[in-house]
Amino acid sequence: MKRSERLVDMTKYLMERPHDLIPLPFFAKRYGAAKSSISEDLAILKHTLASNQDGILETVAGAAGGVRYIPFWGKKHAQKYLNELASRIEDPDRILAGGFVYLSDIIGNPQDLDKIGKLIATRYAYSNIDIVMTIETKGIALAQAVARYLNVPFIIARKRSKVTEGATVSVNYISSSLDRVSKMELPTRVLKENSNVLLIDDYMMAGGTLTGMQQLVKEFNGNIAGICVLCEADFDDVKLIEGHLSLVKIKKIDDKRKVIMAEPGSLIAHTDFGNF
Amino acid sequence: MKRSERLVDMTKYLMERPHDLIPLPFFAKRYGAAKSSISEDLAILKHTLASNQDGILETVAGAAGGVRYIPFWGKKHAQKYLNELASRIEDPDRILAGGFVYLSDIIGNPQDLDKIGKLIATRYAYSNIDIVMTIETKGIALAQAVARYLNVPFIIARKRSKVTEGATVSVNYISSSLDRVSKMELPTRVLKENSNVLLIDDYMMAGGTLTGMQQLVKEFNGNIAGICVLCEADFDDVKLIEGHLSLVKIKKIDDKRKVIMAEPGSLIAHTDFGNF
Repeated sequence: MKRSERLVDMTKYLMERPHDLIPLPFFAKRYGAAKSSISEDLAILKHTLASNQDGILETVAGAAGGVRYIPFWGKKHAQKYLNELASRIEDPDRILAGGFVYLSDIIGNPQDLDKIGKLIATRYAYSNIDIVMTIETKGIALAQAVARYLNVPFIIARKRSKVTEGATVSVNYISSSLDRVSKMELPTRVLKENSNVLLIDDYMMAGGTLTGMQQLVKEFNGNIAGICVLCEADFDDVKLIEGHLSLVKIKKIDDKRKVIMAEPGSLIAHTDFGNF
Repeated sequence: MKRSERLVDMTKYLMERPHDLIPLPFFAKRYGAAKSSISEDLAILKHTLASNQDGILETVAGAAGGVRYIPFWGKKHAQKYLNELASRIEDPDRILAGGFVYLSDIIGNPQDLDKIGKLIATRYAYSNIDIVMTIETKGIALAQAVARYLNVPFIIARKRSKVTEGATVSVNYISSSLDRVSKMELPTRVLKENSNVLLIDDYMMAGGTLTGMQQLVKEFNGNIAGICVLCEADFDDVKLIEGHLSLVKIKKIDDKRKVIMAEPGSLIAHTDFGNF
């Protein structure tokens, strides 16, 4: 196999397995090539990813070493996308009753999900996330997009019991936007003790739902490694949680005057982009 | 930019935009290279994908032409994965009450979702799918995985109204496994008239839920271009729908004796793999 063919295959292979450590002998065997040739291939790959600020190729030395592709987006890419996203959200047709915003087109668009997933996975690339957790329904697509780039499983808390999941653990929480006590639950077998959990959701008002998710994680003796939402309603003064990040902040919704104002959220300021 | 770097970047660029037609002048400009060099690059890419039976690079000639990456898995890859998947499902710990099977670990695993998505996207690669549709909750991850490889949006029917979606159209259907009339609905703005819709779900007993989805699509004057489920309960004799495909068939569940039997479903036999 020629270098050119190896590079195509290697790029595809690594992209399909983010964060996985691939030993160099694996590639040497796959291509029937010397390890020195493989190292040269990987140097080209690393350089190309870095010059686009779109991915890191990490080399781990030693007997247990290898190479690892880390999806990682540069700050400029992130800023450009979030500016664009915020301005797309500033569309009066998105205003729904009760301070909510229509986001289903974004959450159902694979190209947006890829960018959102890559951006959040950049922030938590070195946070040792074991598992991504969300709550049905709208958070699922986002959690999956992030989980794919971190290459970890994702799990879904549910608002009501379903026969197809077996035994569950449930908690009560105050759904602040609705001002009532609600219940959410998680099947017992989906979350191991002491897991490092990243919480993801689509829309946050005061954060009541996220407090419920925090409680659930605590029930499993898990650790909250991060909280990130797509949109945060910044006009809701009472916040029930701390330390969460957002991609977009909704600054104002005026249903009568048909005005919605949005801007990039706190994610970028709280991301260490390194050289990117 | 050297050929080797172009190949890395081109592979990544195309993989992130499945089914999109990219004009050759775009690459020529991106790399400051002659169109003839780009054509040679693409020939290498095409050849490498084909020899792995893992992707098609389609060249469209003419002024409006260009190149298109089509995720497409060879029959051997498909068979191997479905055999493995069926045997993983044959685990008595998966047996749940009422003829259901625990699948959340598979549906929450990015590596499985990628393979399932690629496999279903192979079957419908040339079916002109406009949109993928599923119903909450378990179908969402599968629909998203397929939508990503077809690079089309996906939409989610819901079993109960939610304030965050605006106006909806609803239908009643017979949820056969529960033997009762249920309701599902879809926001009016998510589905355009005359769309070619691919229905995706996780688990099918008699197919009652899928008949509801069919009705919903009809309400929007859409066309059902395909129906595919992850698991089909083959022991359920009464089938309410026709023409559906499945990745895995559950042949038998015996809760008392702790026996579950599964085998690859109908998808592969109904897929035209071409030279792959």
